[in-house]
Amino acid sequence: MTAEAWLDGIAAAIPPIDAAAAAVASTHLDRLTKPPGSLGGLEAIAIRLAGIRGRIVTDIERPVVIVFAADHGVAARGVSAYPPEVTAQMVANFAAGGAAINVLARAAGANLVVVDIGVGGAVAAHASVAGSDAGVRLVQARVANGTRDLTTGPAMTRAEVTAAIDVGREVVSGLIRDGIDLVGLGEMGIGNTTAASAIVAALTGLPPSTVTGRGTGVDDPGLVRKVAAIEAALAHHGLDRADPLGILAAVGGLEIAGLVGAMLAAAAARIPVVLDGFITGAAALVATGLAPNLAGRLIAAHRSVEPGHAIVLERLGLSPILQLDLRLGEGSGAALAIPIIRAAARIGGEMATFDEAGVSGAG
Amino acid sequence: MTAEAWLDGIAAAIPPIDAAAAAVASTHLDRLTKPPGSLGGLEAIAIRLAGIRGRIVTDIERPVVIVFAADHGVAARGVSAYPPEVTAQMVANFAAGGAAINVLARAAGANLVVVDIGVGGAVAAHASVAGSDAGVRLVQARVANGTRDLTTGPAMTRAEVTAAIDVGREVVSGLIRDGIDLVGLGEMGIGNTTAASAIVAALTGLPPSTVTGRGTGVDDPGLVRKVAAIEAALAHHGLDRADPLGILAAVGGLEIAGLVGAMLAAAAARIPVVLDGFITGAAALVATGLAPNLAGRLIAAHRSVEPGHAIVLERLGLSPILQLDLRLGEGSGAALAIPIIRAAARIGGEMATFDEAGVSGAG
Repeated sequence: MTAEAWLDGIAAAIPPIDAAAAAVASTHLDRLTKPPGSLGGLEAIAIRLAGIRGRIVTDIERPVVIVFAADHGVAARGVSAYPPEVTAQMVANFAAGGAAINVLARAAGANLVVVDIGVGGAVAAHASVAGSDAGVRLVQARVANGTRDLTTGPAMTRAEVTAAIDVGREVVSGLIRDGIDLVGLGEMGIGNTTAASAIVAALTGLPPSTVTGRGTGVDDPGLVRKVAAIEAALAHHGLDRADPLGILAAVGGLEIAGLVGAMLAAAAARIPVVLDGFITGAAALVATGLAPNLAGRLIAAHRSVEPGHAIVLERLGLSPILQLDLRLGEGSGAALAIPIIRAAARIGGEMATFDEAGVSGAG
Repeated sequence: MTAEAWLDGIAAAIPPIDAAAAAVASTHLDRLTKPPGSLGGLEAIAIRLAGIRGRIVTDIERPVVIVFAADHGVAARGVSAYPPEVTAQMVANFAAGGAAINVLARAAGANLVVVDIGVGGAVAAHASVAGSDAGVRLVQARVANGTRDLTTGPAMTRAEVTAAIDVGREVVSGLIRDGIDLVGLGEMGIGNTTAASAIVAALTGLPPSTVTGRGTGVDDPGLVRKVAAIEAALAHHGLDRADPLGILAAVGGLEIAGLVGAMLAAAAARIPVVLDGFITGAAALVATGLAPNLAGRLIAAHRSVEPGHAIVLERLGLSPILQLDLRLGEGSGAALAIPIIRAAARIGGEMATFDEAGVSGAG
């Protein structure tokens, strides 16, 4: 199927969650030896997993974290605390096993796939660091060497957007054939909180100053430049809130498009998707514009310190699991949430019922 | 050493955290390939672990969850959604491996120790449920067969309180000899949110209606009875906020006293302590009254839906890791937090520095 045809059919390919399976899971949880609902959000996760997969899920055995990496033309405008070459350097660091996401994916028992979907510079070969040989794979799938400056023209062509979405779809499709049962999503790209803020402002109609934060830690003058760049971009493009792909092309990023394709492909295959922070959230806002039922198939790992993230989570109707004031990206929060999601699944799989354990119910 | 002598010396035995070790950990974290501070609360945990242990902690290898179980005379007043016999039934369920804490401790790679420190009824023998043979140990150490009704007299004698604290100390001391490197704490006891609410009201001076919630899910008339019981107890006893042990004896519980002893013993041995919910928090409020430096050696797993828990965490100066609206107890939240704490430790142990990875710093 061509990428265009797949996208045209994606809304229909992602049905609402299986309410009957979710209800069966909920009833089962109430039979277990605990006050009904007393595991709160953990029970909500177990019920959501059942709704997504269409059956009670009793474990997460083969989770994967996928990190899409790309560069941004707007980075030349001084909107980030870090120089653009850090994107390629960090991809090399991922490949060598030394980044935070390597540590956190290993700790979560998740494989790590890093996709160079549009890095600007060369990714240097790096020797693996100690203990990092397991579970990291680098996929070379550049659609372009970064985006163009979103303040002066579209960041991507429609063809580039479609191609990047298709990379995300292809990566996830391959992993699903390998038997994964959960996808955590992350990203790397100097300048990409600028792109994500522009997307969220365009899709929500909120002013850029409301949805824009410091990203990896830009200083006050940098934050002023960042908001100004987004305001200039929105004024330049005159975007249509009803055209998520147009917004993605105008002010998005290649890694954001890859995330869109990945989450749509996972959802269509009934695989739960764990969002990381603000940028994966912005991608989800685009993707739910294309396939509204996607939102029920997402799990929010955490709420980051980016002011736009709370807005995105509220629009998606998601409650975050962790409260850690993260602002790294890379899928770090998604990896941290995996053990919690796994524990939620095992509650339904391993706990005794009141009958089995001979415990009295509420009186 | 007698329990009384140990308690007399406990404030001096728990020094402030090692600020130099915490500073070394903080400096190390800023050299790693991520924007400084971008892992937020995860970095705060790593720094806290270093301050507690006096050195950088790079893994959590032998965590244990200890659940203290006891009954409460006040349960006869209809303050709980469940009948008192559920305490003994749940201890049997713990021993058989079928409760939530069994599943969650296993998922966290933690051993589980259940201490019958004052259950009222007989604990039936139960066959293990499938997959539960690993890692649960039942310690029989009853100080009494439950407490007396706190509304009409002291729940415990001073001697019972001291004995129960000593059980907690002994259990932890034995586990430390076995080589544990982290203690998660939990409890089971029908009626014990009533005791915990009374403790918190007495120690903070706040009205019982402010600090009291529904526990495992008591209905509206039950909540009215619960608040009335606490008000009656406080009026009856005329408690002194400067006498935490007196408050514990008057309105506490044997499992709460066990928790006090356990956390003091762990802190004195520089072992980090993970609090679960409202009841372990109330125990921590008592214990910090005995040894003020304890607070810096605690980690809050989550903030429960009990209204008094937020108050307790604020008094202790702790930020919770998880946002899951848990209200089960048993150490469930503490077990869920262990993989996050382990990940925090491994960040310092496994990530590459900017120099090692050849990544540029902030420009």
